[in-house]
Amino acid sequence: MLIRDLGEQALLQKLQRFCPPAVVGDDAALMAVATGQSVVVTTDILVDGVHFSIGLATPGVHTTAPADVGWRAAIANLSDLAAMGASPLGITVGLGLPGDLPVSWVEQLYEGMTDCLAQYNTPIVGGDICRSTVLTVAIAAFGQVLPAQAILRSQAQPGDVILVTGVHGASRAGLELLLNPDAGAGLREGDRHRLIKAHQRPAARLDILSILQEVYRLQSPAPVSFRVAGMDSSDGLADAVLQICRASGVGARLERAKIPMPSVEGWLSPERALDWALYGGEDFELVLCLPPDLAEAIRERLGNAAAIVGSIVAGTEVWLSQSDSQPDVALNLNQGFQHF
Amino acid sequence: MLIRDLGEQALLQKLQRFCPPAVVGDDAALMAVATGQSVVVTTDILVDGVHFSIGLATPGVHTTAPADVGWRAAIANLSDLAAMGASPLGITVGLGLPGDLPVSWVEQLYEGMTDCLAQYNTPIVGGDICRSTVLTVAIAAFGQVLPAQAILRSQAQPGDVILVTGVHGASRAGLELLLNPDAGAGLREGDRHRLIKAHQRPAARLDILSILQEVYRLQSPAPVSFRVAGMDSSDGLADAVLQICRASGVGARLERAKIPMPSVEGWLSPERALDWALYGGEDFELVLCLPPDLAEAIRERLGNAAAIVGSIVAGTEVWLSQSDSQPDVALNLNQGFQHF
Repeated sequence: MLIRDLGEQALLQKLQRFCPPAVVGDDAALMAVATGQSVVVTTDILVDGVHFSIGLATPGVHTTAPADVGWRAAIANLSDLAAMGASPLGITVGLGLPGDLPVSWVEQLYEGMTDCLAQYNTPIVGGDICRSTVLTVAIAAFGQVLPAQAILRSQAQPGDVILVTGVHGASRAGLELLLNPDAGAGLREGDRHRLIKAHQRPAARLDILSILQEVYRLQSPAPVSFRVAGMDSSDGLADAVLQICRASGVGARLERAKIPMPSVEGWLSPERALDWALYGGEDFELVLCLPPDLAEAIRERLGNAAAIVGSIVAGTEVWLSQSDSQPDVALNLNQGFQHF
Repeated sequence: MLIRDLGEQALLQKLQRFCPPAVVGDDAALMAVATGQSVVVTTDILVDGVHFSIGLATPGVHTTAPADVGWRAAIANLSDLAAMGASPLGITVGLGLPGDLPVSWVEQLYEGMTDCLAQYNTPIVGGDICRSTVLTVAIAAFGQVLPAQAILRSQAQPGDVILVTGVHGASRAGLELLLNPDAGAGLREGDRHRLIKAHQRPAARLDILSILQEVYRLQSPAPVSFRVAGMDSSDGLADAVLQICRASGVGARLERAKIPMPSVEGWLSPERALDWALYGGEDFELVLCLPPDLAEAIRERLGNAAAIVGSIVAGTEVWLSQSDSQPDVALNLNQGFQHF
């Protein structure tokens, strides 16, 4: 059955099963906010052919499974909340739908979103649908945070270290394996699977929020105020560091050897792996700038899943230190991912 | 200059002047919420050729000025907040933009949005842009309300009367005048102008919120809890009454003679005016169900700008009473506006 055969009301009814019954049926949804917390809001618009491919019009191209589109759309927004230090409250979903899209595609999109959101106890609290010639998914996500504990890009200071969660470049490598099934023939099957999963089913690092609370509580029994600068690595590690430095009016020094990258032996050159770590994007890890003792305390709790990759310095330049035999490299925003 | 000539970062920079500086530059925006208030969230997705027409591809068709697209997109969302009894906190804007769209079109869209939002002290707190083959505007709006004072569709009770703000059918009439410049030759110029303005520059009835507070305060010095059912008339008066009745498990009786309609003498037949009042939509007025004494107190404060048009009754049917010579008519949702 296609979208055009169903009609708006019938489709809305089908999609309501993905929402908590209490929030369905009014002009807008109500969400309780804890006393003293501010609301955090973010939005993303995703378009077929740019952020994913449904492949209806062009058979043969790499297509994205609708459940993966839903999962990744939800994660991109939850990751923006994590990057603000905010706990999620809910998301809304606006859809522009071509008439010749199968209804099952939309249901699988919602299944992917709700499977993802369930891991973070986050409901879909509203939405809107309309017809369009190009499939469009517009998500807005809402969270809450004590304003004095918000993670802002502008709060980095010289003397901070740069802590990153996870590995960088894995999503880009997974995309390459999906685009070119013959690529990476030398990879172990477990590594191949992990890379593809990093692309199709990334996680949002909301787990860091309780760890931040914990390490700040070690300093003071009831910390009401943090100073953590940070953002997520959705546009790559280089972009995150550069954006934080620009917003904070500081520089940074990254150490190439300390950047955690995926296992790509037998496939990628070190240069390619570095390029994808810096500029690949969509890993949805966090890049945090904070005092060394706190960063070390967080790193210990996360084990291999985090690394201190550099430090914040005076000035405005961002440098990547390489090995003794290679010169340092200045990074800038023009090398980063541009959506246009 | 066209979108494709500018690039994402340069366009984002151009659009940042429409946002308060404090909210620009992070992954998400922070908004303070008053103690005890819940957050109210709504979203709309608008697509060229469905909700408006930029007319780039099809010269000669009626086109919508970009500032009007922005104004109407903002109002549709603010009206959803008003329909929940919520005061606005902010909106986010996601845009899908064709490469051949003039940059000035997007700037005028934002001017229309911010001109509108300024009347309600509401900022644009975030956004996202990406390229698309079809111009798409996805808005999410956030407000706050004490949960016990939220206006819900499900709260109507037999014995309530139905209070409507404003006139109904004016937006549809204004659209007709825009689509057919020869129409309405018998209209007075002031009336023609008012109808076109009702379509291009509608208002959101957020003014009703303080009036509701005032009339409830007359009953009790500090009312913590209201019972008002309602929604907005964005899909027409009939749809609003039918949706409230369905959600509340009640019926209603409307009196045709009491429905406020615009001045269309010398143009529309009474039947056409009624059809547009019931099914035209986009008037963004409020349809409220509440006890007669409170409804009357609100009506007095609004003067001619509100009317009691019927009452809530037991059962599930919605009837329109006409004059003595015409039979009563049962209304149902299938006659309403369908977006697909």
